Amino acid sequence: MSDIKKELSAKEISPAVIKRLPRYYRYLGELVENEVVRISSKDLSERMQVTASQIRQDLNNFGGFGQQGYGYNVQYLYNEIGKILGLDRTNNVIIIGAGNLGQALANYNFEKRGFKIIGLFDANPRLVGISVRGVDIHDIGELEEFVKNNDVSLAALTLPKQHARQMALQLMDYGVKAFWNFAPLDLNLPEDVIVENVHLAESLMTLSYRIRCQEDQF
Amino acid sequence: MSDIKKELSAKEISPAVIKRLPRYYRYLGELVENEVVRISSKDLSERMQVTASQIRQDLNNFGGFGQQGYGYNVQYLYNEIGKILGLDRTNNVIIIGAGNLGQALANYNFEKRGFKIIGLFDANPRLVGISVRGVDIHDIGELEEFVKNNDVSLAALTLPKQHARQMALQLMDYGVKAFWNFAPLDLNLPEDVIVENVHLAESLMTLSYRIRCQEDQF
Repeated sequence: MSDIKKELSAKEISPAVIKRLPRYYRYLGELVENEVVRISSKDLSERMQVTASQIRQDLNNFGGFGQQGYGYNVQYLYNEIGKILGLDRTNNVIIIGAGNLGQALANYNFEKRGFKIIGLFDANPRLVGISVRGVDIHDIGELEEFVKNNDVSLAALTLPKQHARQMALQLMDYGVKAFWNFAPLDLNLPEDVIVENVHLAESLMTLSYRIRCQEDQF
Repeated sequence: MSDIKKELSAKEISPAVIKRLPRYYRYLGELVENEVVRISSKDLSERMQVTASQIRQDLNNFGGFGQQGYGYNVQYLYNEIGKILGLDRTNNVIIIGAGNLGQALANYNFEKRGFKIIGLFDANPRLVGISVRGVDIHDIGELEEFVKNNDVSLAALTLPKQHARQMALQLMDYGVKAFWNFAPLDLNLPEDVIVENVHLAESLMTLSYRIRCQEDQF
């Protein structure tokens, strides 16, 4: 049992706090980049536009990062939140669908988040063989062997929606247990499978609603 | 004052319901595609994996779409939710940053959601002049004139984070009031400006956390 696990099992952290951690991590990362060594909860609260008491409560969940009157040690807090988020481990990622979106993901620098893209897959022969940021696009026919020979933690699904669920089921068969789904559908996979959806069309509809409300106001 | 506006001002719809509407719209759209004419709240609830009573409550907000024992008229409900979401209007969109992500967005068929991409902009001379799905990539220097000559409702920001906020401020100056922000930062714009964030790195960190928890379980 790892140290982190012991810490976490000793104290349950609420999902609401967990949900806010990536944003803390992002702000702390910027502070680290700007070589800020310490920050008070008041200063952090002004930057993040949340209350200082919320910050204190949230960060107290992990114990002892801050000291009254001295503020938080930025680098330490950044590292600790990173560990809680699992960012100190490496997760191998494959991307299914090497169109623009798949290639955009491959071009992101997700490695500093602990995610290493080890392969892209596509059925389009014109894409197969191309390499994106040093990672090859393979023919989809090679998928099974590739997954069985590599330790794949996560599959990003950037393929058309009509193929997405079948592909996810196939990958589950090969042992993949987590999906970053960009296809506009609910995958409806068993409960022990991790699915994080990025539904761009729904994000756009939210925008549409807000634009309409604003137009109607005037 | 439009009919829709009258309806909505007569009855306030809770933000929680609004947030669920895009998902209803997606499922109803699939039913329309499959030529389903009517559906009961029970059947819809099984498909969407929410309770039938939630569906009835949500859809009752808009009044009279369903009839006890007869179910919902799929096409009618789809259209009405579309109107509420403002999808029956056309919003002109520009995309700032014509890299992979910008091009991926340009390649989506967002027109059926009422969003028409009318221009992409980039500072990279190698991209300028290329057209994506019939839409030209312009030099960023042409931005001001373009926005002033076209009715731009929304700007998608798919440019590096160090330029994102300054670009948003500039676009606000030109009259743009809504942003679809893919840059990994909070834009901190005035309250009357609409911002919808898609923070891919935060979505990935959520995944990281869930993968770590699952690994530690075994």
